[in-house]
Amino acid sequence: MPSHEQKVAVVQAYIDAFAKGDPAAVAALFAPGASVEDPVGTGAHVGHDAILAFYTESMKTGAKLKLEGPVRTAGDYAAFAFSVSLAFKDTARIDVIDTFRFNEDGKVVEMRAYFGPNNMQGM
Amino acid sequence: MPSHEQKVAVVQAYIDAFAKGDPAAVAALFAPGASVEDPVGTGAHVGHDAILAFYTESMKTGAKLKLEGPVRTAGDYAAFAFSVSLAFKDTARIDVIDTFRFNEDGKVVEMRAYFGPNNMQGM
Repeated sequence: MPSHEQKVAVVQAYIDAFAKGDPAAVAALFAPGASVEDPVGTGAHVGHDAILAFYTESMKTGAKLKLEGPVRTAGDYAAFAFSVSLAFKDTARIDVIDTFRFNEDGKVVEMRAYFGPNNMQGM
Repeated sequence: MPSHEQKVAVVQAYIDAFAKGDPAAVAALFAPGASVEDPVGTGAHVGHDAILAFYTESMKTGAKLKLEGPVRTAGDYAAFAFSVSLAFKDTARIDVIDTFRFNEDGKVVEMRAYFGPNNMQGM
């Protein structure tokens, strides 16, 4: 199982990839058959191509992520709270919590994002 | 599906029950066959009796919960970040993220707590 530090490094790489607007760098954090459900309740994007397409689309908003508190790790998982700002609407803020499940190689096999309309301000 | 406001009220009732040291009030938030995995990776407590026993034991630490940021809601879920203080050790702080999955009646059917040794300070 990846260590706390390895999981935190993947979370940081995820945030850094948004900062750079690099969807391929995000997709590279995931195992080939991984699933991404963002937000939870909308159905999963499964596999590298679907995940890359999803993040390519997401990053068109200019979304930047800021950690809000420490990354929590437990078992195969990391969970982290963050806020999102959007390039096209500087008053906007979205509050999100993500969970990542990792495989033995430190790749993300399942990502779930928790947020809804009530977590969006200034849109 | 319960509304955002209903989910937030259950999260607040959970925090309030810790403030009062009332494990029965926590157990009453769960559906009869619910599961509690706290922390994730340690196996689930399933059903009312196991859940009540777990929270009765947990509250012996005098744990008090403080929300760190807004409750996120998505689909059937709420996710929330919080810090924990302990009555017997006033320097201690544990950073946790919980997820609650709800049924149609607004009862919690699955609770998962994300934290590990690296999320405990001053113990």
